Order: sequence, then C-alpha cells, then structure tokens
Amino acid sequence: MEIGKLYGLGVGPGDPELVTLKAARIIKETDIIFAPQSRNGKPSVALNIVQNIIDEREEECEILQPLFPMTEDKDELAKSWDDAAEMLFEKLSNGLNAVFVTLGDPTVFSTFSYVSKRLQKKGVEVELVPGITSFTACSTTAGIQLTEQDDIMVVVPQVDERLPKLLPYVDTLVAMKTSRHLDVLEDCINKDPREKEIVSVQNCTMEDENVVHGFVDNKKYFSTSIIKFKK
Amino acid sequence: MEIGKLYGLGVGPGDPELVTLKAARIIKETDIIFAPQSRNGKPSVALNIVQNIIDEREEECEILQPLFPMTEDKDELAKSWDDAAEMLFEKLSNGLNAVFVTLGDPTVFSTFSYVSKRLQKKGVEVELVPGITSFTACSTTAGIQLTEQDDIMVVVPQVDERLPKLLPYVDTLVAMKTSRHLDVLEDCINKDPREKEIVSVQNCTMEDENVVHGFVDNKKYFSTSIIKFKK
Repeated sequence: MEIGKLYGLGVGPGDPELVTLKAARIIKETDIIFAPQSRNGKPSVALNIVQNIIDEREEECEILQPLFPMTEDKDELAKSWDDAAEMLFEKLSNGLNAVFVTLGDPTVFSTFSYVSKRLQKKGVEVELVPGITSFTACSTTAGIQLTEQDDIMVVVPQVDERLPKLLPYVDTLVAMKTSRHLDVLEDCINKDPREKEIVSVQNCTMEDENVVHGFVDNKKYFSTSIIKFKK
Repeated sequence: MEIGKLYGLGVGPGDPELVTLKAARIIKETDIIFAPQSRNGKPSVALNIVQNIIDEREEECEILQPLFPMTEDKDELAKSWDDAAEMLFEKLSNGLNAVFVTLGDPTVFSTFSYVSKRLQKKGVEVELVPGITSFTACSTTAGIQLTEQDDIMVVVPQVDERLPKLLPYVDTLVAMKTSRHLDVLEDCINKDPREKEIVSVQNCTMEDENVVHGFVDNKKYFSTSIIKFKK
C-alpha cells in the first residue's frame, strides 16, 4: 500500500478568517488532523482556529491530539517528537493522508519541522502550506509598516549576545515571545541611541488581543514586539 | 456623508488559493477594487490573483488600475502616489469603501503604505489585512525551514554596506528581488566562511515557478533567495 502524504499546514495567528483558501480546502479533504496540545486537557490553539472548517466537512475525520510538553528538557522533547512521528507513521502507512496544523507558518519556529524530519527519513512525502506569520499579523493589527524602501528587518525568538552586535545595522526588529526575555531586550533596545517606535501585540488577532505602545511585562505566551528605528 | 473605509489587503505571493478567507470576503463585499499596474497595458499581478473571487461577486464592482511607474525617480513616484490617493479619495468621499490589493503583505515592502499615508492625513480610516509574504511562500515551496530554535533571521530588499557587518550574527538570510543585486550579494555570501545552503525561488507559487539550489542569474522580477548558515 502506498504511504499517505503529510501536510505541514500553517493556520495563521489566531483569527479563523486568516486561514488561506488552500489550507481550508486541505483540512476538508484530509483523513487525519494532527494537532498537538501543549498541556493535557488544554485544547490546541491551532485546532481551535480551524474547528469551524472541520465542522463543515461532509465526512468525519480523525483528530489526533498528542501532548507536546512545554519544557526545555531536550530528551523529553525528542521523545514527544519520536512518539508523534510514530503515531503519524502508523496512519500514513495505512494509506491515509494527514495534516499537521501549526500556528503561524510551518517554516517559522514551528514544532512541525522536528516531526517532519523524522517522517521524511522514513520516505514520507511532505507538502508545506504557508500561513500568515505572527509578525505580519502584529504589524497589520498595529497599523504600522514592517519594512519600506531599503529597510533591513531582523526577527529574533530570544535575546542572545548577537543582538547588540547586529542591532546598529537594523531598521526593524521583530522580537517574538517577548515576555520570556523582556529585561534583557529592553536593556538592549534602550542602549541604541536612535529614536524608535515600539509596539507590542499580545494574542494577536485572537479574541483577547491587546495592542500596546512600548513593551508589556506580562507572561502571556503569544506576545510579539516590533521596534522600528528612525533613520 | 461619511467617508468610506480603505482596506490595504495582502493577496499573497501568486497562487490564488493562498488568499485568506478574510481577504476573499472583503473583496466580495467592497465597492471599489484598486489594483495599480506597473506597466501600461500589463494587468496587475495582484488583480490576477483575485480575479476569480471578483468573478464570483453577486454585485458588480468598479476596478481602478492606475499606472505606478517602475522608476527610481522620486518625483515621478511621489506624483503617482499623489494621483492614486486623489483618485481613491474621490471614491471614498462618496461613501464608497475601497480595497487596495497588494502582492504579499501590505506591511512588507508594499507601495500601499505610500498611498495610505496620504489618505490617513485626510482622515480616511484604513484597515490592513495581512497576506502570505513571499519569503514564507518560498521556504514552504522549497521545503526548507526558515527558522528553528534560537535562529536569527534577516530580510533584506537589496545589498548595502550594512549586510557584511551584520551577516556573521545571522542564521538565515532572506534576500528579496535577488536579480537586482546578484553580484554583490554572491560576493558577500561567499566571504562568509560558514557552510551554507542556498535556495532561490523565482515567481514563487505562480504557474512558471522555478526552484533552484544556489543563486540564479536572471532578470525576472519576482526572485527571492534563502541562505541558511550551518551552525
């Protein structure tokens, strides 16, 4: 039997209307929906985004929601990806197609890649479907331009020793998951002598979206800051 | 009479299926579609992408296709944006809503911002609708991850003296419109001693899409290169 195909599908930042027509079609056509949970019993955000599309399906589909622990423990993470790959491979081996739904885009800081690599080694065909990334969702929500003319934009998931070194050459900085590293980020930005505009968006395009000028000290997970340096 | 609303709407990279559900709804509901042409007689790429959505409309809409010249002449560009803003303001003043369709996302190197600023000064309400950017379309097409873990990503629209300075601190470089500055870009990348993977995509997600490993020396306008440096 032919092995099924795996889609790595971006569902965008949160608003169910920010799903693409292609993503909606694939969700309606595919046998298995794979949507990892980050905490036991807490429904997957990515699954919530596409729930109304799933509800419109003519045929039932199977929804798999394994647990991906929120941990920095590499062994524990690797085991959860191994398990997920095994769970998916069993279905794909039966000739079924599966779609792995992921927040934002599947090529930008997505856990999809870790599972996908394991399955590609086993000969599984993978198709990626792009999604609206959190940073363009934030800039459009905040009503600001990310880049114009010859602007250089940098996207960082955390602050390390490289940021102060490259910052002087950057016009727009996108700092993802800001709350995780707020002190060191603020310090780094304040040391840059240029005039700047700072906008932070929490839970962008979701029901409890919050747009703030400046940084926000808040432990909500989905928080992104855009820092634009004036020329 | 109340002034109409202007939408700055990203239609994604080229594939009509990569339009969001929200963008499709707004195109179906709005009175005026504004789609600048870059050359007289050459249909707007953004308009082509949404033509089948326009064809599905129950009511007719008006389509405006002014000419935005492909020039570096600042006065000529400013005049085209002034004219476009005036053309749109006339319609909006009559209480009609308008949607400005733009390739990719309206906050990433989009001409929309220049027209939008002029209209916001006149009190026009502007809503931005994000679109799939060319760089995530390219990474998904090429089947590669843009960023994982603590990766730093930089997006540049051209090569200037800042690129060699910040490059050592970068894991992923996205170079847009590569053909415009290929020699200087290649030179800059070659000087970096790290092992690297280079993928270039021309006319991403369009019918004549072309994925190449390495750079491509070709004057096609829509060409993006992704350079991933190994750690």
